[in-house]
Amino acid sequence: MATNTRERLIDAGAELLRRQGYSATGVKQIVDEARAPVASLYHFFPGGKEQLGAEAIRVSGKLYEQLIPAVLDVAPDPVTGVRMFFAGAAQHLVETDYEDACPIATVALEVSSSSETMRQACAEVFESWVTAGAERYPVENARELTIAMLAALEGAFVLARAWRSTEPLEIAGEMVARAVEGALSA
Amino acid sequence: MATNTRERLIDAGAELLRRQGYSATGVKQIVDEARAPVASLYHFFPGGKEQLGAEAIRVSGKLYEQLIPAVLDVAPDPVTGVRMFFAGAAQHLVETDYEDACPIATVALEVSSSSETMRQACAEVFESWVTAGAERYPVENARELTIAMLAALEGAFVLARAWRSTEPLEIAGEMVARAVEGALSA
Repeated sequence: MATNTRERLIDAGAELLRRQGYSATGVKQIVDEARAPVASLYHFFPGGKEQLGAEAIRVSGKLYEQLIPAVLDVAPDPVTGVRMFFAGAAQHLVETDYEDACPIATVALEVSSSSETMRQACAEVFESWVTAGAERYPVENARELTIAMLAALEGAFVLARAWRSTEPLEIAGEMVARAVEGALSA
Repeated sequence: MATNTRERLIDAGAELLRRQGYSATGVKQIVDEARAPVASLYHFFPGGKEQLGAEAIRVSGKLYEQLIPAVLDVAPDPVTGVRMFFAGAAQHLVETDYEDACPIATVALEVSSSSETMRQACAEVFESWVTAGAERYPVENARELTIAMLAALEGAFVLARAWRSTEPLEIAGEMVARAVEGALSA
């Protein structure tokens, strides 16, 4: 739990964005959850909700990026690593009653055509995940493979949450695992 | 252009949901765009925004479902069909300045944990797309392949819109095309 006001505002913003998205999250709700005065939000973030939101997305992005080495660096091989990553995501989704999937995707879809500041923050986070993933695949097309993996994961989250089923994650994970297998044997 | 009030409300709702999502869309904006009195919305949809939203999602879902036969039934073979589908999506994204991707995904992520009525509408639409796609793949695991294709497409849309680049669609499309190729030759 962050002790200073700026960090509390970012933590509250990140949690609200993850849980309910950008449009549903108001300044009032952020300061309430952060137990901070409204003026403090504009003191630390003169650009208001948009600026705080971009910072919160970057902080969430860094936090979730740690999952990449946490899973892939302990996997016995890259193909098993993919399967472990999708299985872990599925398990976490069930444990959180299909609420906690990607902290960025909802916001990315909401803001891509309406807030350039927010879109750029989301774009940077996705790029940093691709870089972290690609470093861990010892093949020539590692970047492409990681983008394919991230796309399959994000889309599977959309279907899994709508259907309240982990099936899409299992299916998408298997497709990506085979794509990585193919790339490694090429 | 719909001439009766109920259809105008649904069309306006569908367009707003597609463009800006569920949370950002207010009842006032829907009736303004539909050139209808507020009372008419509650007359046709006693459940308000949620009921109209669910209906709008279903209407959008049926409209976009037509893309599946429109592309896959004219493709020379199922693998080329996948490539044509992703290429068409990429072209449409560029033509609409990265705004018009999936009419359901933003809403699905927004509502999955907050509105059971809306979640079910999204779930039904995704299921209808999978059914329509699976009918067109002459393999045993047609349903799994179609779910993999839809997941890859939805996730590629998230990345493509955030990055303002069609690269994720090209990469994801190629992965799915190879998965279909593998299934056909198995």
